[in-house]
Amino acid sequence: MVERRKPINVNEAISRMIRFAKAGSVEYIPIEKSYGRFLGEDLIADHHVPPFDRSPYDGFAVRAADTDYTSRNHPVELEIAGEIGAGSVFERPVAACEAVRIMTGAQIPDGCDAVVMLEEVNELVRNGKKYIQIKRNIKAGTNISFTGEDTQKGSILTKKGTYITPGIVALLATFGYKKVPAAKKPKIGVIATGSELLEVDQALEAGKIRNSNAYMIQSQITRAGGEALYFGQFSDDLEVCYNQVKEAIDEVDMLITTGGVSVGDYDYLPDIYAKLGCHVLFNKIKMRPGSVTTVAEKNGKLLYGLSGNPSACYVGFELYARPAIRTFLHSSYPFLKKETATLGADFLKSNPFDRFVRGHISYQDGRLIATPVGLDKSNVVSSLAGANILILLPGGTRGYEAGRDVSVLLLEDQEGLTMEQFMERDVNSRKD
Amino acid sequence: MVERRKPINVNEAISRMIRFAKAGSVEYIPIEKSYGRFLGEDLIADHHVPPFDRSPYDGFAVRAADTDYTSRNHPVELEIAGEIGAGSVFERPVAACEAVRIMTGAQIPDGCDAVVMLEEVNELVRNGKKYIQIKRNIKAGTNISFTGEDTQKGSILTKKGTYITPGIVALLATFGYKKVPAAKKPKIGVIATGSELLEVDQALEAGKIRNSNAYMIQSQITRAGGEALYFGQFSDDLEVCYNQVKEAIDEVDMLITTGGVSVGDYDYLPDIYAKLGCHVLFNKIKMRPGSVTTVAEKNGKLLYGLSGNPSACYVGFELYARPAIRTFLHSSYPFLKKETATLGADFLKSNPFDRFVRGHISYQDGRLIATPVGLDKSNVVSSLAGANILILLPGGTRGYEAGRDVSVLLLEDQEGLTMEQFMERDVNSRKD
Repeated sequence: MVERRKPINVNEAISRMIRFAKAGSVEYIPIEKSYGRFLGEDLIADHHVPPFDRSPYDGFAVRAADTDYTSRNHPVELEIAGEIGAGSVFERPVAACEAVRIMTGAQIPDGCDAVVMLEEVNELVRNGKKYIQIKRNIKAGTNISFTGEDTQKGSILTKKGTYITPGIVALLATFGYKKVPAAKKPKIGVIATGSELLEVDQALEAGKIRNSNAYMIQSQITRAGGEALYFGQFSDDLEVCYNQVKEAIDEVDMLITTGGVSVGDYDYLPDIYAKLGCHVLFNKIKMRPGSVTTVAEKNGKLLYGLSGNPSACYVGFELYARPAIRTFLHSSYPFLKKETATLGADFLKSNPFDRFVRGHISYQDGRLIATPVGLDKSNVVSSLAGANILILLPGGTRGYEAGRDVSVLLLEDQEGLTMEQFMERDVNSRKD
Repeated sequence: MVERRKPINVNEAISRMIRFAKAGSVEYIPIEKSYGRFLGEDLIADHHVPPFDRSPYDGFAVRAADTDYTSRNHPVELEIAGEIGAGSVFERPVAACEAVRIMTGAQIPDGCDAVVMLEEVNELVRNGKKYIQIKRNIKAGTNISFTGEDTQKGSILTKKGTYITPGIVALLATFGYKKVPAAKKPKIGVIATGSELLEVDQALEAGKIRNSNAYMIQSQITRAGGEALYFGQFSDDLEVCYNQVKEAIDEVDMLITTGGVSVGDYDYLPDIYAKLGCHVLFNKIKMRPGSVTTVAEKNGKLLYGLSGNPSACYVGFELYARPAIRTFLHSSYPFLKKETATLGADFLKSNPFDRFVRGHISYQDGRLIATPVGLDKSNVVSSLAGANILILLPGGTRGYEAGRDVSVLLLEDQEGLTMEQFMERDVNSRKD
């Protein structure tokens, strides 16, 4: 009794899923904890940067006009009228033929319009007064960081939904964000099913394997920006499992199960979805691996039924769950970045379906090289360890030779694409 | 009174620093916490994967010989002798002209040597017995994942010092690592100096700026894999500051100060290093920004005196502190990955020194494109927000036009290079 399912293509599946993805709330967190989170609001400059004309070097603030007609043979001497440490201001305007010792970052005193670096002057003392000697003409504006030249007050520096890098942390500090508006992490429940699964600390038994998917998916959730809640391995009894899933849903923003979505006799998920009264968005996709990836919706919450096969589970998550997580995090670019690369090795297996092959990206003379990792049996775990891309190989041909262009999805990228960009960009002339 | 310092080149500075970088200890952490950490030991397979011949699909396990001479017009019928759920084993050898219903992941029963997928058979019942009908010749080995075909017992799957990705977490689970040997994070102390600095929640004042470096550096430490300990902003009084630094050293594996390393009158770090009896490895580098980056060593502990200038601080950390942190984490590839890219925009400023310009990497038709971000005044904060590379521009020319090849350092990469690879790889004919 094989249930007949109608397969749809990848883009159609994505379109059906993303309609139910929604942005989450915003929470305020200490700036020290903000690295690696996602901005919940646009980051706006509350003042000019620099906030005042300042010196980028240690040196002497001068009046450029005083150095007119100055040359190696006709140096000018300026009296040192005082000094300004960083964070201090000079108390009076600087007069003609005066200079002020100025430290890196300090405010340019009134009257001055240039800075001469320490190395470019000779200091001398005459009649108890200190002078500097300058041997060339200095143009007004030399070595001055002008007010607002970096950033104008009121400008949007970074959009909400952006991954917070060390550079963005610097901006947050500069603009006084002691508390940072961060997108709240979605809580993603994880449930493993499968009677063949041993817990990670159990000894191997005949016919059984250790549960790796649950831990892999939790890491993928973390990488995507979510918070994983592991509910454990669930019962093989349909009724018990139904109740477990039903209770888990209430505690999370999205729920992921691994295993149990095929049409096999022990695959309860379809029955559970039916019993929950879920709206099944799709349960068969024209892709390998992961063709049985199922996504359902219950009261606006997304439920993911990922394959128990590790590679299919991995790919199903990245294609259909990651974009919902990034949408929750306020990103306008929730999809994996898709780029063109040169296939680095032959991949000669034919397959009528579009494939997402785990691969490794490297660089050669400024070009992206995409190399499939390991064997490509769909249950290979070790190939996933070195994978940092998914290589898209369109179905229906006789295989792919090294040197041809392929599209790749960058798994470690934090910038992403919009859905439209994701769907449009494809070096393969795919039929989807 | 300008102290004269002898500038050295970047590679020489790296060589002096790395001699004092050392690997830290290993701690055992729960697998759920292992994503994003670094392996403290090689990850070794404790069993074959798969541990037994198994079915990658739902279907029927068969004896291939039974399908010899089978064709569309001459189908063979095999009696269904039972079924095997994933995690179960079939209790007896399968006899000629028998088939066994088998679930994804289940062990191939004795006597069988191929799996036929559900879609490829017709099921029928005759005289109360169940049969499948197969219409083609099946080769031995079809649809079987063979013992050890993914991974042989005893093989090293991932080397120590490797960044733990979701794929590696899957491997750790597969091989029973309930507790993961992780490289202990080095504790990196951070001290900010500078009388111009306001705390991040203070209102702006004339001549002052908010302290952004301390928070930026803490994030860079986290990204590099370390644990940041912020000691706060230190006194402008030499004696007080000396005692603060001295006490901080004992609590950390490395100590970073920002600011105070120039030759200005308020730059105390040189005096503090002298008073501590440190061995100053270098205090002047032929590079911009960050020429005053200072690295010292005290009883084998590295002390970093980074510039107070945000860009110089950022670059100094990535070039000289990150490799020490990754070495502590047991990585054999502690240096930033260096690749060739096409310069995406003119950069026409001349400079006699090698420059490390913040840039953004993008991809175009399979090529890496490196574009400088923002202005290049060395105190520009906002340019750092979008930066994911440092572009190396060798000194001594008249500037660089778009389209030329440049070397870039990939700031978000986790794979890295050895020191030798880092120094050898350079598309520019640098004089270093």
